Amino acid sequence: MFIGVDLGGTNTRVGAVNSSGQVFHRLSLPTRVNLGLEEVIGRIVSTILSVIEQSEKEGYQIKGVGIGSAGIIDIRTGTVVTSPNFPEWSQVPLKLIMENKIPYPVFVDNDANAFAYGEKWVGVGKNVQSMVCITLGTGVGGAIILGGRLWHGFDGMAGEVGHMTVQPNGLRCNCGNYGCLESYASASSVVRRIKLAIQSGRTTIVMDQVNGDQDKITSTIVYQAALEGDPLAKEIMEETAVYLGIGIANLINLLNPELIVVGGGLANAWDMLYPITLAEVRRRAFASLAQTAQIRKASLGDDAGIIGAAGIASFSLKEVAYAI
Amino acid sequence: MFIGVDLGGTNTRVGAVNSSGQVFHRLSLPTRVNLGLEEVIGRIVSTILSVIEQSEKEGYQIKGVGIGSAGIIDIRTGTVVTSPNFPEWSQVPLKLIMENKIPYPVFVDNDANAFAYGEKWVGVGKNVQSMVCITLGTGVGGAIILGGRLWHGFDGMAGEVGHMTVQPNGLRCNCGNYGCLESYASASSVVRRIKLAIQSGRTTIVMDQVNGDQDKITSTIVYQAALEGDPLAKEIMEETAVYLGIGIANLINLLNPELIVVGGGLANAWDMLYPITLAEVRRRAFASLAQTAQIRKASLGDDAGIIGAAGIASFSLKEVAYAI
Repeated sequence: MFIGVDLGGTNTRVGAVNSSGQVFHRLSLPTRVNLGLEEVIGRIVSTILSVIEQSEKEGYQIKGVGIGSAGIIDIRTGTVVTSPNFPEWSQVPLKLIMENKIPYPVFVDNDANAFAYGEKWVGVGKNVQSMVCITLGTGVGGAIILGGRLWHGFDGMAGEVGHMTVQPNGLRCNCGNYGCLESYASASSVVRRIKLAIQSGRTTIVMDQVNGDQDKITSTIVYQAALEGDPLAKEIMEETAVYLGIGIANLINLLNPELIVVGGGLANAWDMLYPITLAEVRRRAFASLAQTAQIRKASLGDDAGIIGAAGIASFSLKEVAYAI
Repeated sequence: MFIGVDLGGTNTRVGAVNSSGQVFHRLSLPTRVNLGLEEVIGRIVSTILSVIEQSEKEGYQIKGVGIGSAGIIDIRTGTVVTSPNFPEWSQVPLKLIMENKIPYPVFVDNDANAFAYGEKWVGVGKNVQSMVCITLGTGVGGAIILGGRLWHGFDGMAGEVGHMTVQPNGLRCNCGNYGCLESYASASSVVRRIKLAIQSGRTTIVMDQVNGDQDKITSTIVYQAALEGDPLAKEIMEETAVYLGIGIANLINLLNPELIVVGGGLANAWDMLYPITLAEVRRRAFASLAQTAQIRKASLGDDAGIIGAAGIASFSLKEVAYAI
């Protein structure tokens, strides 16, 4: 069993995970970032120790602890360099601090990589050696597994699938570039684009559903409106699927992977997105490569964060074994 | 020493290469595709054996033979599946045939991968563990080295850098897609786009240089006209550099490599392309990743084909050693 810690800005979730991806002794605590570094880590350590104790009491053997966090992580030292969830943290050596208090090896990686480790370990990518993961959330994240191993890149920052340019003269992205995949396929981009359309005079039932308050629009509301046949909402969702298809076609032609896994909040609209995305992939990627690459919705659901974090530990321990 | 065989549609070039990238006993022969499979291979084998004999006479130890060929290669069996240079070849087990006649292990890979092996072995990528190679020739080829090894992909077809979509509504590519990098950054695309501009009424000194015969336009002539200040030629070359920059920025954000190497005929215009390409990369890629990734012109020149082919053998033998 591995302990997985899904370190979020609001809540932190801890659980023990076995190699079938079952989660035991789930515990959740409010992260309370404003309590300060020492207190926040202390509370999380107590929770981890409590999950370890319960698991060991039942005779399970714990092999390691994995921590997944948004942000830039130096995986070699397990340091949180910066994180959007912890604006005051800078260069926090999480692995070092944790290993002083926990009698098992601790491994830290970012949430997109944790997602990939989880799907590879016990999810839809279980028997797959090469896969690209894409998360359609507030942003568009990504992670690349090749030859059974996660490719971290020279600076540990590979996998920024969301920041491929898919429309050179397109919308400005938060990263400063124009026309990134993130500007067309993230949940927040769905909201942003329907607002732009409303401001340019287009009508939509979405506005009725939020009582005319644009700030209440969410991607789920847009998706629902599209399901109900609202022309503008359908247009936005279709555009989302087309750009996702362009991004996936690029990944297929570049990396020739076995599998593409799509997760994140907007993947809830998979039934609507998938046929359009697939058609775009087939239109753009080499036929033989597009035939190889399965395109699947993520499989781990609500526990993906904990399972993926546990997967970090599982895979990192294997890497250590390889190195020996 | 390794023997490198650059198997071309017109000429085949053979040489012995040492680990400093020096080429000895260069021999070249017309490939004469129309002589038929057996005769073509027989002629090449004779040439290889002659280079081996000369090298061994001087006391050099040969470790293996590498063959680089355009087309789709099954690297596991060393089979030429299909090749544009040999339209009548289909599923030719080149490794098997060659190893029956040559007393050394033979390895076959495609020309883009050979290019990457050469640059990694003795060229600009010598001390680099992660690099992406891009060749700007008739098409745009590519190869990806990660963690010191070439990523071949699930079907052995990874690295199709030229078939990233960089302009969703762009020019139609030979592959059937629209707006591929190849449609904007290959040598033939330079010719194609200046012809389109001429047909739409634009004037250029290029037409004087080919005595009004559009079929005589080459990318070198366009580059020369741009150097002389011809506005249309400059525009086309600048567009080429911008799209190359978009493609490279995508590779940097996805793979976070140490090095990007650009080769192929159009790389002769590197002094003109590079500043524009670099500016576009900096505009689009994450600043920290763009700072990491060196962008360099290929270093091996005329012998790149032979050296790269020898590099296939050098790296493949190492892989075998890893596997043992």
